[in-house]
Amino acid sequence: MKRRQFLSGAALAGATAAVASAFPKPALAQNVREWRMVTTWPKNFPGLGTGANLLADYINKASDGRMKVTVYGAGEIVPAFEAIDAVGNGTVEMGHGAPYYWKGKVAATQYLAAMPFGLTAQEQNSWFQYGGGQELADKIYAKLNCKFFPSGNTGTQMGGWFNKEMNTIDDFKGLKMRIPGLGGEVIQAAGGNVVNLPGGEIPPALQSGAIDATEWVGPYNDLAFGLYKSAKYYYYPGWHEPATTLENFINLDAWNDLPDDLKAIVEQANRATNQMVLSEFVARNNQALKTLQEKHNVDVRPFSDEILTNLGELAGKVLRDLVAADPLSQEVFDSLVAFREQAVSWAKYSESAFMQARVLPFKY
Amino acid sequence: MKRRQFLSGAALAGATAAVASAFPKPALAQNVREWRMVTTWPKNFPGLGTGANLLADYINKASDGRMKVTVYGAGEIVPAFEAIDAVGNGTVEMGHGAPYYWKGKVAATQYLAAMPFGLTAQEQNSWFQYGGGQELADKIYAKLNCKFFPSGNTGTQMGGWFNKEMNTIDDFKGLKMRIPGLGGEVIQAAGGNVVNLPGGEIPPALQSGAIDATEWVGPYNDLAFGLYKSAKYYYYPGWHEPATTLENFINLDAWNDLPDDLKAIVEQANRATNQMVLSEFVARNNQALKTLQEKHNVDVRPFSDEILTNLGELAGKVLRDLVAADPLSQEVFDSLVAFREQAVSWAKYSESAFMQARVLPFKY
Repeated sequence: MKRRQFLSGAALAGATAAVASAFPKPALAQNVREWRMVTTWPKNFPGLGTGANLLADYINKASDGRMKVTVYGAGEIVPAFEAIDAVGNGTVEMGHGAPYYWKGKVAATQYLAAMPFGLTAQEQNSWFQYGGGQELADKIYAKLNCKFFPSGNTGTQMGGWFNKEMNTIDDFKGLKMRIPGLGGEVIQAAGGNVVNLPGGEIPPALQSGAIDATEWVGPYNDLAFGLYKSAKYYYYPGWHEPATTLENFINLDAWNDLPDDLKAIVEQANRATNQMVLSEFVARNNQALKTLQEKHNVDVRPFSDEILTNLGELAGKVLRDLVAADPLSQEVFDSLVAFREQAVSWAKYSESAFMQARVLPFKY
Repeated sequence: MKRRQFLSGAALAGATAAVASAFPKPALAQNVREWRMVTTWPKNFPGLGTGANLLADYINKASDGRMKVTVYGAGEIVPAFEAIDAVGNGTVEMGHGAPYYWKGKVAATQYLAAMPFGLTAQEQNSWFQYGGGQELADKIYAKLNCKFFPSGNTGTQMGGWFNKEMNTIDDFKGLKMRIPGLGGEVIQAAGGNVVNLPGGEIPPALQSGAIDATEWVGPYNDLAFGLYKSAKYYYYPGWHEPATTLENFINLDAWNDLPDDLKAIVEQANRATNQMVLSEFVARNNQALKTLQEKHNVDVRPFSDEILTNLGELAGKVLRDLVAADPLSQEVFDSLVAFREQAVSWAKYSESAFMQARVLPFKY
């Protein structure tokens, strides 16, 4: 999923800058901080919008009314992709989105979201917390006048929906695929014809043949979108977004103005949200996948090793070329690649080895 | 790691019940809740004891002095394995440990910690939060007059240290191995001679040949323990503890007496701690493993598929026999097995497939 996908959601919600005037900035009453959280998600969007709701709820409960955060869906105060500006310039105090939405403003943000063939969710958390990631993210978001927190994760996404079998890397040549961001750059390098479409335009575009393929999120969100109606083949794994970090960004002045206890509450609420959102995806994706397979006859297939090997090779080249143009991107990329090397090594002895062991042919 | 391993740590710290009198229960001064947290860990033990410190620190900071939690190492107030009694009977307000330590009191606790060939850390969190696990845990811990929170995770452990090659399941016959809990039951069923030893007694027992093999935690903790000095072979993966949940238990009356905002702070602090502890293990294990391999010439090997398949088959039988004797164990086991089926299925399409894809032979 990417930048423009929620514009339609924003439009549906009647997003115009004029709407903002209906929501006057509240005064600081009786030492209560009334904060507004704008989001890039349609209000209550499963997993994502509800994640933003969780964050607000946690802060409100823990602060015992000293903070009162109200969540606004995309377009309610500002359109989805003006959220970072609204927070940076102090129109509102906080926002919830995904870091790659801001790559047009600060290119390095996108590496904080997900990296093709990069880290799992758990590894990404570890990088933020013990690998220098939080410090780099704060450095990057200072350019947007914001404080950054990881605030949810989708886990490993699916590889996408295709209207034909994908057997070799050559099958990407000329393929019209909706795949934004770094994954899109890799598909472009493979000869694909990459297009970006807002989420709401994906189903008709697939149906009319305007595109041959698309990625979105994973079974839980893809089922809700009805993508199975226009594409038969559902490929895995999501090499392009192995674990996408969602974010909470806070106006830097508002953040600095918080007393230490409220800072601690906001930080812990984000860590709790970070875990809960991922837990929800892990709990819900399998059931949705079964529904897609059993009720809607979706053909779920693995990408071949040949395709994955070639995409992996291309990803390395494409990313290195991209970051060479921007020192801050290079810095965050180098940090991630060094952490990735350690994480990949450890996973081979631990979680990856275990997950292969438990599917050996024994009766449990 | 298991129940008796920290007794030596407790002894070292001079643990006697008499010590408790040196720590009178503080009064409720100016509406400040001064709480004491006893732990099953030696003070500041890497990853585990430091995890308990994190939890206290988070609560203290977020509550702005309305709660003041002080952490005590094993033996400082009560010995490690009297922690649950001290909390249940109100001597102190909270504790930090691992659920399988209390299986002698309530057998069902051990299934909350880790299950051979069971769930990864992320899946375990998901089960607690969206699979009914928290409700079951509260039901189980009510028997101990405690409220339960997951409060850290070791991630996938290693399979253990052996003084000989392990090639087939027959190599476990007569093997004197220190492996406690459910994993130990499985090794016993495989013909092993299972012994329990506190952590501090493991190195001399390995060195003298009193035992042929042992498991402990993972590279980060095992390196610190010097186990490489007496066993050459270090096997993976830790099929017996694929992700061990650490816990915070709170006296139920003290918990019920908290106002809603402090309840929210304690809950979120636990979720933050849960994530931070796992992040630390993920960040530190690889470097420790490299040190073991490169500096101490440890021979790191995978268990064969034949061994893992046989252990998996035995695990299913052993666990089903065990839970049949106790309705509460049966209830939590059934819930976990149902969740496991979904989680294993989803992992095949997502994280497990991705982790295999990213180690295909391409240059990143």
